[in-house]
Amino acid sequence: MKNKQFLLKSRPVGKPTRDNWDYVENDVPELTDNQVLIRVDYISLDPAMRGWMNEGKSYIEPVQLGAVMRAGTVGQVLKSTDSKFAEGDYVYGHCGVQQYAVVGTPGLHKIDPALAPLERYLGVLGMPGMTAYFGLLDTGLPKAGETLVVSGAAGAVGTVVGQIAKIKGCRVIGIAGGADKCKYLVDDLGFDGAIDYKNDDLKKALKEHCPKGIDVYFDNVGGEILDTVLTQIRMKARIVICGAISQYNNTAPVKGPSNYLSLLVNRARMEGIVVFDNAANYGKAAAEMAGWISQGKLKAKEHVVTGFDNFPEALLMLFNGENTGKLVLKVGA
Amino acid sequence: MKNKQFLLKSRPVGKPTRDNWDYVENDVPELTDNQVLIRVDYISLDPAMRGWMNEGKSYIEPVQLGAVMRAGTVGQVLKSTDSKFAEGDYVYGHCGVQQYAVVGTPGLHKIDPALAPLERYLGVLGMPGMTAYFGLLDTGLPKAGETLVVSGAAGAVGTVVGQIAKIKGCRVIGIAGGADKCKYLVDDLGFDGAIDYKNDDLKKALKEHCPKGIDVYFDNVGGEILDTVLTQIRMKARIVICGAISQYNNTAPVKGPSNYLSLLVNRARMEGIVVFDNAANYGKAAAEMAGWISQGKLKAKEHVVTGFDNFPEALLMLFNGENTGKLVLKVGA
Repeated sequence: MKNKQFLLKSRPVGKPTRDNWDYVENDVPELTDNQVLIRVDYISLDPAMRGWMNEGKSYIEPVQLGAVMRAGTVGQVLKSTDSKFAEGDYVYGHCGVQQYAVVGTPGLHKIDPALAPLERYLGVLGMPGMTAYFGLLDTGLPKAGETLVVSGAAGAVGTVVGQIAKIKGCRVIGIAGGADKCKYLVDDLGFDGAIDYKNDDLKKALKEHCPKGIDVYFDNVGGEILDTVLTQIRMKARIVICGAISQYNNTAPVKGPSNYLSLLVNRARMEGIVVFDNAANYGKAAAEMAGWISQGKLKAKEHVVTGFDNFPEALLMLFNGENTGKLVLKVGA
Repeated sequence: MKNKQFLLKSRPVGKPTRDNWDYVENDVPELTDNQVLIRVDYISLDPAMRGWMNEGKSYIEPVQLGAVMRAGTVGQVLKSTDSKFAEGDYVYGHCGVQQYAVVGTPGLHKIDPALAPLERYLGVLGMPGMTAYFGLLDTGLPKAGETLVVSGAAGAVGTVVGQIAKIKGCRVIGIAGGADKCKYLVDDLGFDGAIDYKNDDLKKALKEHCPKGIDVYFDNVGGEILDTVLTQIRMKARIVICGAISQYNNTAPVKGPSNYLSLLVNRARMEGIVVFDNAANYGKAAAEMAGWISQGKLKAKEHVVTGFDNFPEALLMLFNGENTGKLVLKVGA
């Protein structure tokens, strides 16, 4: 049985290209005790993966050169030597960018394909959904009547942040790239407004959409957008630092927010989040979000790219802003 | 009766010079109802004054061109048409950079010259002390055993922050400019360590002094120092943004903290403070600090410059790092 894999060959400078990957085929190893063989069906493509390719410890160890690229996955158990997992079970885990994985079972979670399409467990029912839920509710602390702005609004996290903020009674404005994404946010997801940062004057548009200023800003992008939003925050605003996709492929130093003294003027707070800290409460969050989905208050959207060998180009779609909703790679044809 | 005054003549570009001031002499006006005539004895010189000289609203309105420069003051009531204040009372207020002031009484607070020297009411018993107390305790949230770093450590706010953090059981490291200031922090104020940012390698020194990383950073300076400290924070660190004296005289844009994504990696928080928000609780804080002073746990230090007409040069001492402790201008000879 052959297993195609993408190994990290070199650390990228700027955007990762196909040259940074070794595309190899290896035998699937035999199982030892308490392992499972998984057929990977969907691979999660996330902005955070860019950080894992860099040298140096961040909130998680970097992927080693020559190792299978780390990625969240859903797939089916084909063989098991662990009594907790049976052949046929579907599982979520970090099985990496490969077609098959032989792994120990810590870190695997069973998922139910009857409740939702498999790929949804990588999106609203997976890490991006959890990131949105805990980052917004525990750190953004939105209150009914407040104004929330989210950047990367049409992405996996942003779409969920905006919808939960609407559920909580906020006025919600999304920042996204392109008229189609903006139309989707307002027409399909019920955002109160959307700003196309590629074509609109961001500062002017924020003033129009947020005449009273911004109470909560959920930042997925960093860079100039963060800096501009800082000029429009209200007293006691909360800024959630979830990511900075505009800076991940920088070859120059990260652009720090020049307007950070707006935090002082407005007695505001900027705070970083990492979803893994909430692992003990994922179940509770998933249950509440499943309820919102069944009530039609929370819509899921996945952007599925098909074909395992398209991984390098599919990953780049994130950094080129080509996805709407959660970007996933479907391994099979 | 003649009154010498410094009026704001023009808005400075870079450091304020004598050219930015009109040094004038005017008659002291007659009192109307519910006013007092105050002889100004001490004028507070504060980094924040630089911000008040700029155009555009910040947390407070800018000083208008042609107006007496705003400043905190202590002085004595010479005449009163308000029954709440009697001739001879000593008062704290914002009477501005002038020898005499005729003002209404809202915003005036009686002080007791028997309890402490007058100038102390502009320092540890005044706004800088309140800034340190509330900024550290309510926003920095120091816990015993944690490591606190404060910049501008030998200044009016920094000296108090470090001493209160010691009282709360923290390991305290100060960042200041010059060996004399560093020696003062350790030998006289009991800091656990001090770093001379002008001569030491800040990053290396922080690693040595804070081997477990930094739990609380109280920032008075911004710029490169903030950016370097960000690389050394611990999980769940709190960064209190109190000021950014390194940036106030910039003619280029403010330097944003390039390493702000350390907030994400470390799930840390950066929050701005303005002392005026705590006005309702000044009394409680003053009482607690007076207790610490009487117990010898909190030492006060003022840096007194004498002579009203030296105001422009005395103010510059702040930006040149020439003061140790609270800088005040004594009006009389």
